[in-house]
Amino acid sequence: MKIKVGIIGATGYAGVELVRLLLAHPNAELKAVSSVSYEGKKISEVYPNLKDVCDMQLQNEDIIDLCDVVFTSLPHGLSEKFAKKCLDKGVKMIDLGADFRLDSAEEYTKWYGKTYEELALHEKSLYCIPELHRDLYKGQPIIGNPGCYPTSIALGLAPSIKSGLVVDNTIVIDSKSGVTGAGRGLADNTHYPNCNEAFSPYKVASHRHTPEIEQTLSKLGSKKVNVTFVPHLLPVNRGIVSTIYFTATKKTDAKTLHGMYKEFYKNEKFVRVLELGDVANLRNVKYSNYCDISLHYDEHTNRVIVVSTIDNMVKGAAGQAIQNMNIIFGLKEDSGLDYIPPAF
Amino acid sequence: MKIKVGIIGATGYAGVELVRLLLAHPNAELKAVSSVSYEGKKISEVYPNLKDVCDMQLQNEDIIDLCDVVFTSLPHGLSEKFAKKCLDKGVKMIDLGADFRLDSAEEYTKWYGKTYEELALHEKSLYCIPELHRDLYKGQPIIGNPGCYPTSIALGLAPSIKSGLVVDNTIVIDSKSGVTGAGRGLADNTHYPNCNEAFSPYKVASHRHTPEIEQTLSKLGSKKVNVTFVPHLLPVNRGIVSTIYFTATKKTDAKTLHGMYKEFYKNEKFVRVLELGDVANLRNVKYSNYCDISLHYDEHTNRVIVVSTIDNMVKGAAGQAIQNMNIIFGLKEDSGLDYIPPAF
Amino acid sequence: MKIKVGIIGATGYAGVELVRLLLAHPNAELKAVSSVSYEGKKISEVYPNLKDVCDMQLQNEDIIDLCDVVFTSLPHGLSEKFAKKCLDKGVKMIDLGADFRLDSAEEYTKWYGKTYEELALHEKSLYCIPELHRDLYKGQPIIGNPGCYPTSIALGLAPSIKSGLVVDNTIVIDSKSGVTGAGRGLADNTHYPNCNEAFSPYKVASHRHTPEIEQTLSKLGSKKVNVTFVPHLLPVNRGIVSTIYFTATKKTDAKTLHGMYKEFYKNEKFVRVLELGDVANLRNVKYSNYCDISLHYDEHTNRVIVVSTIDNMVKGAAGQAIQNMNIIFGLKEDSGLDYIPPAF
Amino acid sequence: MKIKVGIIGATGYAGVELVRLLLAHPNAELKAVSSVSYEGKKISEVYPNLKDVCDMQLQNEDIIDLCDVVFTSLPHGLSEKFAKKCLDKGVKMIDLGADFRLDSAEEYTKWYGKTYEELALHEKSLYCIPELHRDLYKGQPIIGNPGCYPTSIALGLAPSIKSGLVVDNTIVIDSKSGVTGAGRGLADNTHYPNCNEAFSPYKVASHRHTPEIEQTLSKLGSKKVNVTFVPHLLPVNRGIVSTIYFTATKKTDAKTLHGMYKEFYKNEKFVRVLELGDVANLRNVKYSNYCDISLHYDEHTNRVIVVSTIDNMVKGAAGQAIQNMNIIFGLKEDSGLDYIPPAF
Repeated sequence: MKIKVGIIGATGYAGVELVRLLLAHPNAELKAVSSVSYEGKKISEVYPNLKDVCDMQLQNEDIIDLCDVVFTSLPHGLSEKFAKKCLDKGVKMIDLGADFRLDSAEEYTKWYGKTYEELALHEKSLYCIPELHRDLYKGQPIIGNPGCYPTSIALGLAPSIKSGLVVDNTIVIDSKSGVTGAGRGLADNTHYPNCNEAFSPYKVASHRHTPEIEQTLSKLGSKKVNVTFVPHLLPVNRGIVSTIYFTATKKTDAKTLHGMYKEFYKNEKFVRVLELGDVANLRNVKYSNYCDISLHYDEHTNRVIVVSTIDNMVKGAAGQAIQNMNIIFGLKEDSGLDYIPPAF
Repeated sequence: MKIKVGIIGATGYAGVELVRLLLAHPNAELKAVSSVSYEGKKISEVYPNLKDVCDMQLQNEDIIDLCDVVFTSLPHGLSEKFAKKCLDKGVKMIDLGADFRLDSAEEYTKWYGKTYEELALHEKSLYCIPELHRDLYKGQPIIGNPGCYPTSIALGLAPSIKSGLVVDNTIVIDSKSGVTGAGRGLADNTHYPNCNEAFSPYKVASHRHTPEIEQTLSKLGSKKVNVTFVPHLLPVNRGIVSTIYFTATKKTDAKTLHGMYKEFYKNEKFVRVLELGDVANLRNVKYSNYCDISLHYDEHTNRVIVVSTIDNMVKGAAGQAIQNMNIIFGLKEDSGLDYIPPAF
Repeated sequence: MKIKVGIIGATGYAGVELVRLLLAHPNAELKAVSSVSYEGKKISEVYPNLKDVCDMQLQNEDIIDLCDVVFTSLPHGLSEKFAKKCLDKGVKMIDLGADFRLDSAEEYTKWYGKTYEELALHEKSLYCIPELHRDLYKGQPIIGNPGCYPTSIALGLAPSIKSGLVVDNTIVIDSKSGVTGAGRGLADNTHYPNCNEAFSPYKVASHRHTPEIEQTLSKLGSKKVNVTFVPHLLPVNRGIVSTIYFTATKKTDAKTLHGMYKEFYKNEKFVRVLELGDVANLRNVKYSNYCDISLHYDEHTNRVIVVSTIDNMVKGAAGQAIQNMNIIFGLKEDSGLDYIPPAF
Repeated sequence: MKIKVGIIGATGYAGVELVRLLLAHPNAELKAVSSVSYEGKKISEVYPNLKDVCDMQLQNEDIIDLCDVVFTSLPHGLSEKFAKKCLDKGVKMIDLGADFRLDSAEEYTKWYGKTYEELALHEKSLYCIPELHRDLYKGQPIIGNPGCYPTSIALGLAPSIKSGLVVDNTIVIDSKSGVTGAGRGLADNTHYPNCNEAFSPYKVASHRHTPEIEQTLSKLGSKKVNVTFVPHLLPVNRGIVSTIYFTATKKTDAKTLHGMYKEFYKNEKFVRVLELGDVANLRNVKYSNYCDISLHYDEHTNRVIVVSTIDNMVKGAAGQAIQNMNIIFGLKEDSGLDYIPPAF
């Protein structure tokens, strides 16, 4: 018996990546896909890579009835209504948008300019990076799938935060994301001649992922953790590299750091702690659910540098969402996710 | 029971792509990998994308004994000796190099500057683009796996040639290949600042794939077919687009062309004849074994234009080699090859 | 005394390239720039590369009075009205759009869907690739600046056509253009993740430059010349490579071809006929007004291959327009155009 | 009278960029170019972009006699011998390598593994970022031209350091450089398929520019300044973006920061302090001698973020070297350097 799966918002970049991964999932059956913009068209007309592979017709939102679980991949502010419907019908929902990530309604309003209409829904949801939060899953009907930057950063910092190695207020996170992270909507900064042979930060110290990052790190550290977070637009299609800096609470060395991370992630298939001397590179995780982490230590400033890289569309979105689906339905966590990253 | 597989030349680009695809093949078991340059190292040290996925140690050439089939991916002139060994031991061999592609020893010497030492070996081999030649497979112990350009071109021209639509000596083939086609060896023209934001043809009308193309087309047409073939280096990692031009023997139209190609490939999973009006784009076949073909007709010159695109590393190399393995071992031809091309 | 210059449509890609080149022109003074979309803004707000270099305010169309010559860089169908104004006021006009390129009103309507409202204007205009048409300049008040593809193609074919080397109806032109050729308007096919790591032809045998190409070649050959023309979108910012094929009317060789082209262009600074064995590459002409041409001969099919490359924004647009301005005003033709192409 | 100029090491990337810029310099005459690797060849054979522009023959090192000033662009450890020769002959020398950048012989040996053979030479040299050090020029015969990363960083930090705004030991510098920064030598990490669609840091907290950065900042701050410096390889040809973080010694705001930088650089043509809200992007400085700086403030961590971007080959190498030549010879500092960055 396969899990019956639907995708609401299937023609966005995360949505179509879900289509690709779910079609190949051994325990899932893609029952329906919806799209406001392209209702009535075949998805393969919108994404011709899917020709002959998936020629399903895009429907409207009434696909929930057909499914055991629905993935929503929508602009923020639109997911609550689907969450409510799913809840009423006993259908699980995994939201790839931002609406079920922040605990604090105030923070959500501050950063996203919308309000939580139904607080009860949020209390029934779980924010889940599986490697850090799977133990918190107690049958919640709604999963807030984490953001791409926050995933790379939380995985990169968790062992250090939990072990008390991080001096307060010293965390600097310099992240770089491939252009798919900006979505399929046309914009000046993603027009090819504008972002090819170009590079710059954007939303400097003001990106909406900041409160999500701080929320996750604060819980890990059991105290308020502040970060300076600066994302950059990288002229590649896929992948995030987060270069993370903090001052250590005590003298340490790369070997100790490395040992600590190896131990922390020893049972995690999807987190690869690189050997000392190696440096994480997004080319090694593209098209896979891996997070590669390399550890570095700058002795003369007593600063730790963690490099964490993921595919923003897989571990940073669709892959992690499926990992969460696997948890919900009691499957092996890597089911349908054992993609080997290509060499090029 | 899985087929026991080995790769000789596993650290070249085609070799490591074979590793990736074979590791995920449901009916194959990768028993051994060899490399002259890196003997003794783990393959994941050479290709860190394989970390934790395949940490096999690279061996020397004595891996044939362990295998039912061996893939050789070597510079030309080196495969005969392995072919002989395989033959002696009853091991099948699929050669991804150029040594078993040309029927004519003279042509081989003319274009590759080497000689066939053992003609008998070549008589026991089969050159096989499955969609065109699978019926010729009669248990030959050696498969000459076709070149990347010739694959895209032969699939693009076969229906037209076989139907007699092509005026003699009017075929012009303008092909463009991603940089992986040039291999992993360092060279000036593949140094990043030299080929990024650059574009040019190379080996104009003198590329070694020319005799292979003409041999295949001549057999399809049952007469000598000449082509002008000009390859270009395209600043992308993967993919080939061949834009093929010829004058039609009679007035035709796009619809008729399209119907002919649809019919010709109606049973072929890996050849997608696009709808009229669509144009083949390498982005839709990347990381898959598909060949996408679009048909166009220039009425005012009575010229047909066929656009054929493949992933040079999959359908143009490792994927097609595995397709040939599947034929040899009586598996479903798409076994281990049902990769869905990503949207980006 | 400097020539007073204005640009109508200064915020398009060709427009802003004109700004850059004209600001550095020793005999020109940029008096005014206009833009419908950004009237009132500083041009450096739209193009921050110009900060502190050119902070002129964008005006509306009434800039003609201030100028000796006006460059118009507009969508087709909009230039006639400015031509009329210029003519009335004795101001020269150089049109970078398509409205003064085609002699035939019928062809214009067929390909562009608009009509020539004032035929007299067109009779007073000159289509001018300087190397081929400068002798036709007899004080015409309006210059139709050639298209980018046609420039690369006409320069590549002129010596062969004029010498009668081309067999009728055998010309195939496979062109590839950088993405700036598609302009600054946002579109799906120029959204970064859609055209990065992608490649395909577009408007196959139906591009609007076809009649312009045929018109120019027909005049050169003094008979109707037909071509099959297929443009491709190349994932680079700048540059066009046209690979041009035709059957020779007699046996020839590369040396003879090369000699003929060297002779034809012996006095032309901006056309570089490469040495035999070299291949034209767009990287060598980027940011310059050069057209590089390499000659090749495929003996076994008696087919000539000419590779012609330009910077689509310079020799293909703004640079050639300035070259035309220099002709009009009796300046040295390379004035303000002696940019050395960078190595990378 | 033009300055007679020579380049030793003219076929490296910085060398050939010098050729391009010097050929267009109104007050300089390029007399000779040398290259160990290509002696006897024309430079345009090595760099075909220079065809017909500069077909000078590459000589050996004996070009000093012909020159008023010699630029050396060599691997470290090779410049002292030329410095000695120049000094003996009264020829000025501007070294683009690393041999005249560090005051401390110990640091030089520690980081570069070579020794200063002739300390007296180093005492006669000046390390010179013109905007920061031109007042120190007192006729020194040797100029140590600064490194690319250090230039972007020192210009980005100078106003803050000099004003005492930087808390000790809080500086984190995350720099990203285009691939030309790695030079023209072939290497695995600059092979196109390895660095296209890839991104990673390298030499994490161990890059040789670290002591140069700290030396410059320490002098500016009149106390030892430590930094954590992590460079990354960016898949573009040209340009450096340094994202610089530090904790402020007092509460501040973006407007105050901006005012301070505007004041500091008010007379500097080549440093453009962007308006508040704008973000520095390498696309706006490519092919120019500009350094663009944007200022940002993260109130909730009291951290300042400075984004500084240059063209690594111009302001980061050849352009700055010419700026230094202009200083030495009493020319206008922007002579031959007033290139307008293109929009794309």
